[in-house]
Amino acid sequence: MSQDLSRLDATTLAELVREGGVSPLELVNTSIDGIERLNAQLNAVITPLYDKARQRARSGKLEGPFAGVPMLIKDLDVVSAGDPFHAGMKFLKEQGFYASHSSYMVELFERAGLIILGKTNTPELGLTVTTEPEAYGPSCNPWNPEHSTGGSSGGSGAAVASGMVPLAHAGDGGGSIRIPASECGLVGLKPSRGRCSLGPDYGEYWHGLVASMVVTRSVRDTAGILDVVSGLMPGDPYAAPSPDRPYTEEVGAKVGNLKVGVFAPGPDDAIACNPECAAAARDAGTALSELGHQVHEAYPSALDEQDLYRPGFFQIVACWTAKALEAWGKTTGRPVTENDVESTTWWLAEAGRAVSAAEYLATVEALHAWNRRMAEWWSSDFDLLVTPTIACPPPRLGYLSEPKDDPLEMSRKVLEVMAFTPQFNITGQPAMSVPLGRSDRGLPIGVQLVAAYGREDVLIRVASQLEEARPWSDRIPEIHVSAIL
Amino acid sequence: MSQDLSRLDATTLAELVREGGVSPLELVNTSIDGIERLNAQLNAVITPLYDKARQRARSGKLEGPFAGVPMLIKDLDVVSAGDPFHAGMKFLKEQGFYASHSSYMVELFERAGLIILGKTNTPELGLTVTTEPEAYGPSCNPWNPEHSTGGSSGGSGAAVASGMVPLAHAGDGGGSIRIPASECGLVGLKPSRGRCSLGPDYGEYWHGLVASMVVTRSVRDTAGILDVVSGLMPGDPYAAPSPDRPYTEEVGAKVGNLKVGVFAPGPDDAIACNPECAAAARDAGTALSELGHQVHEAYPSALDEQDLYRPGFFQIVACWTAKALEAWGKTTGRPVTENDVESTTWWLAEAGRAVSAAEYLATVEALHAWNRRMAEWWSSDFDLLVTPTIACPPPRLGYLSEPKDDPLEMSRKVLEVMAFTPQFNITGQPAMSVPLGRSDRGLPIGVQLVAAYGREDVLIRVASQLEEARPWSDRIPEIHVSAIL
Repeated sequence: MSQDLSRLDATTLAELVREGGVSPLELVNTSIDGIERLNAQLNAVITPLYDKARQRARSGKLEGPFAGVPMLIKDLDVVSAGDPFHAGMKFLKEQGFYASHSSYMVELFERAGLIILGKTNTPELGLTVTTEPEAYGPSCNPWNPEHSTGGSSGGSGAAVASGMVPLAHAGDGGGSIRIPASECGLVGLKPSRGRCSLGPDYGEYWHGLVASMVVTRSVRDTAGILDVVSGLMPGDPYAAPSPDRPYTEEVGAKVGNLKVGVFAPGPDDAIACNPECAAAARDAGTALSELGHQVHEAYPSALDEQDLYRPGFFQIVACWTAKALEAWGKTTGRPVTENDVESTTWWLAEAGRAVSAAEYLATVEALHAWNRRMAEWWSSDFDLLVTPTIACPPPRLGYLSEPKDDPLEMSRKVLEVMAFTPQFNITGQPAMSVPLGRSDRGLPIGVQLVAAYGREDVLIRVASQLEEARPWSDRIPEIHVSAIL
Repeated sequence: MSQDLSRLDATTLAELVREGGVSPLELVNTSIDGIERLNAQLNAVITPLYDKARQRARSGKLEGPFAGVPMLIKDLDVVSAGDPFHAGMKFLKEQGFYASHSSYMVELFERAGLIILGKTNTPELGLTVTTEPEAYGPSCNPWNPEHSTGGSSGGSGAAVASGMVPLAHAGDGGGSIRIPASECGLVGLKPSRGRCSLGPDYGEYWHGLVASMVVTRSVRDTAGILDVVSGLMPGDPYAAPSPDRPYTEEVGAKVGNLKVGVFAPGPDDAIACNPECAAAARDAGTALSELGHQVHEAYPSALDEQDLYRPGFFQIVACWTAKALEAWGKTTGRPVTENDVESTTWWLAEAGRAVSAAEYLATVEALHAWNRRMAEWWSSDFDLLVTPTIACPPPRLGYLSEPKDDPLEMSRKVLEVMAFTPQFNITGQPAMSVPLGRSDRGLPIGVQLVAAYGREDVLIRVASQLEEARPWSDRIPEIHVSAIL
């Protein structure tokens, strides 16, 4: 994109296309140009699909609210017909695996007129919160390429933050939309369980922990995409509560007076947090207070039950990893062995293989009971929880991917960083990272907003209010398309 | 109830109470009188709660749409504070287990003004479709006490059919609302997955196969109760799609012209069905055709995939049974041993214990994929599927509970009888048994109506239309309160 275009959000670009100010092909070509100039530095895009994109841009058949706007999709959580799908696995990359069909979400992106330019990098099977797969190497943070983009949607985070595209698909099973949004300075909403279909391939994934959506630069883009991709598809096992009106109508809508709890623990608390991240959450509380909300230092006491929900989360992910390796073996006709996957992946699968179905179901039941205790806080008292999105500013590349010979230690560090996100994958609540903070070293720090189950409308109204009060659109990373053209 | 009262539905009784024609205490006392006269024959009620009921009837604090109407609750799927809860298990009966709290559904019954008179019989853990637990002995069918009431809500079925109460709670994990409704000549709707909360004790049960509701004599009672008990409760893991208006407004509402498929296989087909039951489904098709619908002999071809969904269903139930025995051991502080449960229960738990979490999740995933193939029929073509509710008229008591030393053979017979119901527990679709048929020997035969996921509105509209075209309220079983007073 030209200097100006690369700083615009998808809503504005779609308007420009509609008004004839720019053609879809121009948008696609400038976007591809941006990717080609920056990708050597960032390693955000691992699979270019430029020919298909140009063909689609030229087709004259683009309709929908985002007609002609380029985007990227993460190489996980969704598949696109005829394109490589590797899920961060060298096992699939080496075999040159292709997807035979498209996920419903990809079809919905295309029905909305979006043009997919390629696929973005992700850690193996999305199992960690940094994007440094052995299969494709690390994605680098546009704010400082020595730092992580977060994960598992780190390729998407780097691509959007650097202005390659205005938005990119992302998926979140433990924080994988929100964490890259936080580390790359973007908006990332994990929708409610059941809000967006994972079909046709999955009814649920990680027992309902995984939700798929996008990372964007503006709140209205997130709202607009949610309108496009939400809703029940035939054969979905369950739904989320229906919204009263389109999410785009929540942007800038009256927020009212909310009761807000801010949770910003210190470095020595049970849930330990770096002071810069805690400060960002507290600052967001101040902003909300200035906007007229009742802001308290408060959080659901069930968040203290780490000894229950952390091993529970771990067990679910481990069992699904065991299942995933088995399934990829069957799909490809070649069993997945220890050498085919990263050491932590194998270690997780081994942990999962040791679990019986009855144990697993007891864990799920304990988590569902914990979910009741969590929900109490929202149903009887508060409207919104504000927390840091992650427990530290974007870590250096390598920090979360080492030591490779000690998966337990690696996993300990990962869980320490993702101190605030997986809880809401378990509960299924909508949670959103908003780019309000900044570290002393100039790296982005996100603030997480959490509403009751099914209440994305609350998140979008509040995020939109914060975006107006504390705008972030002028903050651009060091590595950005607009800086090089 | 007096002769007249015992033949009225809950909606009429509630009107009578509102108009002052009868007091809640009179209703409660006549209902208790009916139970006391017939229960020796039917064994429907296993736990009388008469004192509490009379106290509540006298309280003057009854509000809600069903204020003052007596009901019973099944001793499974829900608990009520301070009352015995045995789930059909001699293990819990011998220990005199009590529930410390009430399920949300029980609270909602009471908030609607209903008065709970006691608890009804159920097979051990609801694991079969006849109500003949060793703990409490068989419930007998009011139409012929040598025959089964169906199960697992067989105590509730017998109680409502015999006029003890106008409606009773029921739960359905594989047909356990619809099958007793079919065998006792009642209306039984299994709601969509996520429509009614299973909380606070469960987020989901049998991986979302179990739904809780009631059996009633009229369609409007089913609609009225669904309005009372549906809706998201705090901490529920997911929801069903929201209805456009209250379900009571669907009763008698314009149905339009529906495309209906009738599935009525013969005794030698892959899904084998007794000709009397198949004829009932075909007759319902004729009635719908006369009402102006487009009726075809058609069904989703995914129903032919028995080799996938039958073992899948079995595995889920087996794994949850293993989990349940383990959990009851922990709750009571006394591990459940082989001698504590019925032979089939132990056999099922053993089968479940042999399954790993990864295998279980692969099964769930295969069923979710099958769900997509099923849903296709409703999303792209038909509005309604009509089938027999079960594959034979109410079997004799003993047929499905023998041979006790051969659980595999017993289970084969059970699965043969429940040929049409568990499919819709897997898909989560709403499905309803309507008492349209009658065997040569005068036993009730239900017809199952199945709509797309979330579309209880369609079922209630159609069932209401059929109730008007082919009324059943005058058909009363041999053993009935009105016959003895």
